[in-house]
Amino acid sequence: MVNLDNIRIVLAGPLCGGNVGAVCRAMGNMGLSDLALVAPRRLNMDEARWMACHAAEILDNRAEFGALPEAVADCAAVLGTTARPGLYRRHARTPREWAPRILEGTVNGRVALVFGREDNGLSNDELAVCNHVIRIPSTEEYPSLNVAQAVLVCAYEVYTASARYSPPREKSPDASSALKERMIAMWRQMLLDIGFMKPEKADHMMLGLRRIFGRGAQTTDDVRILMGVARQAEWVAAAVNGAAGRPAGAADCETTEG
Amino acid sequence: MVNLDNIRIVLAGPLCGGNVGAVCRAMGNMGLSDLALVAPRRLNMDEARWMACHAAEILDNRAEFGALPEAVADCAAVLGTTARPGLYRRHARTPREWAPRILEGTVNGRVALVFGREDNGLSNDELAVCNHVIRIPSTEEYPSLNVAQAVLVCAYEVYTASARYSPPREKSPDASSALKERMIAMWRQMLLDIGFMKPEKADHMMLGLRRIFGRGAQTTDDVRILMGVARQAEWVAAAVNGAAGRPAGAADCETTEG
Repeated sequence: MVNLDNIRIVLAGPLCGGNVGAVCRAMGNMGLSDLALVAPRRLNMDEARWMACHAAEILDNRAEFGALPEAVADCAAVLGTTARPGLYRRHARTPREWAPRILEGTVNGRVALVFGREDNGLSNDELAVCNHVIRIPSTEEYPSLNVAQAVLVCAYEVYTASARYSPPREKSPDASSALKERMIAMWRQMLLDIGFMKPEKADHMMLGLRRIFGRGAQTTDDVRILMGVARQAEWVAAAVNGAAGRPAGAADCETTEG
Repeated sequence: MVNLDNIRIVLAGPLCGGNVGAVCRAMGNMGLSDLALVAPRRLNMDEARWMACHAAEILDNRAEFGALPEAVADCAAVLGTTARPGLYRRHARTPREWAPRILEGTVNGRVALVFGREDNGLSNDELAVCNHVIRIPSTEEYPSLNVAQAVLVCAYEVYTASARYSPPREKSPDASSALKERMIAMWRQMLLDIGFMKPEKADHMMLGLRRIFGRGAQTTDDVRILMGVARQAEWVAAAVNGAAGRPAGAADCETTEG
């Protein structure tokens, strides 16, 4: 089974504590937890902790190594990131292309995603340790992403591909055609009664309104709101026209939103 | 035609100069340039410039507004980002789902992508100004991304959907079957000559090597490297076995990589 715990984020020679912290937060956002630093330079750990925000645990649990081969020694697949063209780097694929293979690799082993230092990226020696090369799509003018941004894109693609995210669901069911037709009929009558359109223009005008409502009102809640509007306007029109009595059914416009 | 210049990144009430700078860099990475700040608080502009890196021009060209409606007044579509559930927020879709519609929106008008303040996100009033809501996939435990990270994911999805990125192409053409078979034949002979395998085991052993080479050697360059290895080993074996003469064709192993 796919196991996000088997994905290790490896930062080679990070310079800046803030970036390391931002990496931790990005990992937490995307369900990763295994962070390894290779020969970190003097990191400002206050900055790191501040940028890690709620993901300080990932920062605290980081491992540190002297060189890249040690940091990935127990990994079966090692993917390096690069924004530079050149020897070996031409075999690069995008994070979206790699994501399914990275997930597949977590079933039976560990997968390392390796990111270079802020100023210089990964050296050729370090890239040689990587089985595969990741190239994040970016413009030719500014190809090089901040290291925490690069981690985020890769982690986001892996997390998205893992299909662990389920979007918040619409609670109100889609409106049925019958309900929509009832609403349209109410609006037609109301628009005639308030003098918005003449009877001979009503069919044509209602086509326009059907188009607007068709795009905008998708759920039962949406349609009930519009029915409430029609009912209320109808009541006002009736009062003006000398009739009386607030319609009893006004509560119909209450929705499941509340 | 799709026009990335028609996409505006709007930051509502940003607190931290470093984040604003990181937003600029992310925009530069993904081909965007129009940045608007709404009621920025006292930003550390040195930090902003440092994090913007090569994208300082985007920072310099930013616009500032007092309130969100002014910042998006000339935009036909306004998409707000949120990590919180709640009223209106349930209609959220992912950046990948929105990307094609965002691009479509740039053909005839401006599209604003709105991001909330670091500490509090977008208010309900601000979300009400947005036609649509973006929700970036993230874990339930740490749903809230850093603002520059959120900008990057949205910009990355739009840029990727715009298909402006063309990956670095493999210069060496894929190896033909004929070339691969020639290489396999050379290896078979060489492995016999150096005493790696007995003739009666050769067929079986070559199946294993075909599997390995089949996965690894895809291009003409790859195959020529392996042919060079076979040729050289053959030469050494011949010297040991009493024959002589370095084969003239050793230059064959030169590749187009160099």
